[in-house]
Amino acid sequence: MQTTIDLATGSLAGEVTTSERRIADLAGFFADEAARAALPQDTIVYRVQMHDKEAEGTPGGLLFGTSFVYPGKVGDEYFMTKGHFHAKRDTAEYYFCISGRGALILMDEEGNCWAEKMERGTLHYIPRSVAHRLANTGEEVLAVGCCWGADCGHDYASIARTGFAKRLREVDGEPKLG
Amino acid sequence: MQTTIDLATGSLAGEVTTSERRIADLAGFFADEAARAALPQDTIVYRVQMHDKEAEGTPGGLLFGTSFVYPGKVGDEYFMTKGHFHAKRDTAEYYFCISGRGALILMDEEGNCWAEKMERGTLHYIPRSVAHRLANTGEEVLAVGCCWGADCGHDYASIARTGFAKRLREVDGEPKLG
Repeated sequence: MQTTIDLATGSLAGEVTTSERRIADLAGFFADEAARAALPQDTIVYRVQMHDKEAEGTPGGLLFGTSFVYPGKVGDEYFMTKGHFHAKRDTAEYYFCISGRGALILMDEEGNCWAEKMERGTLHYIPRSVAHRLANTGEEVLAVGCCWGADCGHDYASIARTGFAKRLREVDGEPKLG
Repeated sequence: MQTTIDLATGSLAGEVTTSERRIADLAGFFADEAARAALPQDTIVYRVQMHDKEAEGTPGGLLFGTSFVYPGKVGDEYFMTKGHFHAKRDTAEYYFCISGRGALILMDEEGNCWAEKMERGTLHYIPRSVAHRLANTGEEVLAVGCCWGADCGHDYASIARTGFAKRLREVDGEPKLG
């Protein structure tokens, strides 16, 4: 069966697997833990669809998926993904924004942290050894197409331990990284 | 400057380089060389836009581009790209069709040759060690987004020498691989 991507919404159909993260899964990731704990715990924060993982772990292979980050905030901090380094640090990734508005938050291994604005059509190269996280700053679902090496792996532990050096918050109605 | 991709047409803007192949550049690639020689030699057959090549050659890096194949035929054979294996054979590639209609023609190292139909939204995984070529079977430009490893390299010589095992021709008004 031919796998397809809806270029209006980012949705994949065909040979696809889906995973999701809810508020209950994200203890410790947001600055305001009390605000997180007070939200309905089954609220979906983000969802990832992946083209079938046949290639996973294969050197030279590639994987493709769409990340969907839902609109919302925990306190003044935008809904976001956990974020990760690649386990194999020297591996890059491509993102392109399909719908919604948001930010790609990046951090190198020295803790330098910056963000790139995302809206439909922005194309983003995530260099090697740079951690990455998506945040939704808009009112609609942020959908982002992603392509990465099948043997990159994911190191979530470093981020769970130290976090990103900056957070994306709504300040006076605008996203601010600080 | 933020690089962008127009998700209606595939056009990249920003830090982009472009290359093109004209009828004059494709001697020997089509079955009917006399028909090729008789066409206006400056007719563009295809064009490739690439996001800046900073990562080119870097292990673990990725490259992203859009291939545009124009509508047309040489005799009964559809306009197509030269096609290539990756020089580093064990490397994959992702394609997704953004506009137009066409085919992704694939051939493994044993010469087995097959094709996948392309139309807006089809997603294609090109496995390792598989040569690939695009052909436009429609009336509009075929635009295809591509992501591949920065150290894949391109082996055009094998295809220039042996060709693909099958050709995509119009037979009774329909594309036929044979």
